[in-house]
Amino acid sequence: MEQMNTAAAKSIRCRAAVSRVAGQPLEMEEVEVAPPRAHEVRIKILCTSICHTDITFWRMEGNHPSIFGHEAVGVVESVGEHVQEVAVGDMVVPVFAAQCSECPDCLSDRSNLCSKLPNVAGLMPRDRTTRFSSVSTGEPIRHFLSVSSFAEYTVVDITHIVKLDVGFPPAMACLLSCGISTGVGAAWKVAAVEPGSSVAVFGLGAVGLAVAQGARMRGAKRIIGVDLNPDKFDVGKRLGMTDFINPNDTGGKTVSEVIKEMTGGGGADYCFECIGSTSVMAEAFQSTRNGWGKTILLGVSGNKAPISIPSHEILRGRSVIGSLFGGIKPKNDIPMLAQKYLDKELELEEFITHEMGFEEINRAFELLTQGKSIRCIIWMDGAKVIDNGE
Amino acid sequence: MEQMNTAAAKSIRCRAAVSRVAGQPLEMEEVEVAPPRAHEVRIKILCTSICHTDITFWRMEGNHPSIFGHEAVGVVESVGEHVQEVAVGDMVVPVFAAQCSECPDCLSDRSNLCSKLPNVAGLMPRDRTTRFSSVSTGEPIRHFLSVSSFAEYTVVDITHIVKLDVGFPPAMACLLSCGISTGVGAAWKVAAVEPGSSVAVFGLGAVGLAVAQGARMRGAKRIIGVDLNPDKFDVGKRLGMTDFINPNDTGGKTVSEVIKEMTGGGGADYCFECIGSTSVMAEAFQSTRNGWGKTILLGVSGNKAPISIPSHEILRGRSVIGSLFGGIKPKNDIPMLAQKYLDKELELEEFITHEMGFEEINRAFELLTQGKSIRCIIWMDGAKVIDNGE
Repeated sequence: MEQMNTAAAKSIRCRAAVSRVAGQPLEMEEVEVAPPRAHEVRIKILCTSICHTDITFWRMEGNHPSIFGHEAVGVVESVGEHVQEVAVGDMVVPVFAAQCSECPDCLSDRSNLCSKLPNVAGLMPRDRTTRFSSVSTGEPIRHFLSVSSFAEYTVVDITHIVKLDVGFPPAMACLLSCGISTGVGAAWKVAAVEPGSSVAVFGLGAVGLAVAQGARMRGAKRIIGVDLNPDKFDVGKRLGMTDFINPNDTGGKTVSEVIKEMTGGGGADYCFECIGSTSVMAEAFQSTRNGWGKTILLGVSGNKAPISIPSHEILRGRSVIGSLFGGIKPKNDIPMLAQKYLDKELELEEFITHEMGFEEINRAFELLTQGKSIRCIIWMDGAKVIDNGE
Repeated sequence: MEQMNTAAAKSIRCRAAVSRVAGQPLEMEEVEVAPPRAHEVRIKILCTSICHTDITFWRMEGNHPSIFGHEAVGVVESVGEHVQEVAVGDMVVPVFAAQCSECPDCLSDRSNLCSKLPNVAGLMPRDRTTRFSSVSTGEPIRHFLSVSSFAEYTVVDITHIVKLDVGFPPAMACLLSCGISTGVGAAWKVAAVEPGSSVAVFGLGAVGLAVAQGARMRGAKRIIGVDLNPDKFDVGKRLGMTDFINPNDTGGKTVSEVIKEMTGGGGADYCFECIGSTSVMAEAFQSTRNGWGKTILLGVSGNKAPISIPSHEILRGRSVIGSLFGGIKPKNDIPMLAQKYLDKELELEEFITHEMGFEEINRAFELLTQGKSIRCIIWMDGAKVIDNGE
């Protein structure tokens, strides 16, 4: 039987951290969140965190005013027509990647990019309108990646919703909604890292550290982290990294030369680029071995720059593979990763370096842009905050 | 028991087509072919054919004087010390790719690039000397890709030798020694084309046509050939192609736009570049679909130019894979392909457009460079020649 439309046409007024000017602090405002329409769900956000993709788009002109945020967990507050997959009170993770479960991509094991409902910049994916408006001026406010979790309530299409068991730790669910799943998935599903292999990870943010974690779970023998910030090595070691390269401290060698030395001359079996820099992508490629070396690109370059690959080198059995969300099919794989956390196969706590209340979100932005945090959990209900005071 | 060294230290004088000046006609000369040293085999060539890689290096400065040719079949005339795998009288295919069977690459299913014995430009791979010299001047002559089949006799390292059953048709064995195996292998092993999928092949020389053949054997539904020469379509159709695009005849559309239209808007599942042009590589990439589109690079670019790939597009689940010899492990896969020919699963006759005697080799070069031949079989013993008179 069809679930009743619980939205009952009522808007909710709540707080949201609105980005009004590119690169400037978010403004805490009262916004109106319209009821969910058909195939949509309105969610009360429990906690959210910040991913570098938020930063990239926050800095970019032309995306404002906008409610960013796409790593979160929440509870279903109301549902629109035709929603049967979740009910009011369910614990759900909203994700930027859709899974309609009926297009050729969703039906294939090879793709995780729904081809029926692609993201529409700033708007809901089906009717291309917004559910957010300013209470003071009535002006519409843009969505972000079909999630917009920097608000106490948001509206998300059902194809972007993953249900988890009530009782699963919300902060861990939040981590699984984007960055950590991307990294673990890239090692697990995209690269399919083999036991005993060598792995290099360029960029040790949450995604890169999660790649290390995924590679360790797959039995990689050598996991080399590359980052300009030596502070990342300690947490990296706890998550499975065996070696560390600071590109500023190689005695004049290129990073690929150092990686070739570390791996017996040939290069790494798998190199992951987790920054979005085309020059780092090229260096990652140079660091892979002939015969089967794979370069996996995960970082989003803000300026759509091309990556340049020497054609005579790629011919020697190498490959370059791009991936969004680490090959993760949200509705299948996020519950699987949640179970791996419960089974203590997947380490998540180490990724959380800070926790704070919603009103401190601009400080969380600063911590991430300064490389001081890996993930900062931002609690909508300030009661849960444990700030490490940094 | 160790096979006797049958070489008995005697040199052979025979004819060879020597390339003395880049891009100029080969000169038929008398050369001295030294006996095989340890781990080497001297072969009497039965027939050879010309591959575009011969043309590329023939045109390049710095490779002369040289005996080119790396597609061939022959009979073992004598063997050096420690050769046990073949005996005098065996029918063998010499191949440019080594298989030592003991290095990490040879032991892995993932690589076909022996890392113990890489090719050494112009010389034998182990002791880095030459077995060829001019009878008239005594000057040494360079090898090519460890094969040098434009000579009545050549010396080849045992790691570059594949034994076939005596009685296998020599012209078909010759085709399997490089180009055709490369194309079939690329579809079969590198791309692992799936039944029902769409394939585009850029460049319809022997390699590209063999890709079409391999894709058909793997059950591809749509096989689109792209070539500036419309004459290639007829033979392409006989080898499995379903559609043809002449880039000069698209009404102003790009080839990738036409391929997207032909495949329902998304692009092909697999695109193969068989030319060695970096601009065609980029167009092939543009022609692949999001989600799982693979671009397989087979063509060798003479100038080591880079391929430029838009990083934001590859991120959408696409990949670029380079391959030499189509992932073929010579000693394992060439006998397998020979059996597929005997079982009538693999079509080979269509690839042979011309046959002629050794003394006409320069005409065979012209036919290939002018796009008039696919493969011309050059018989060392002129008795077998059937020239179609073109």
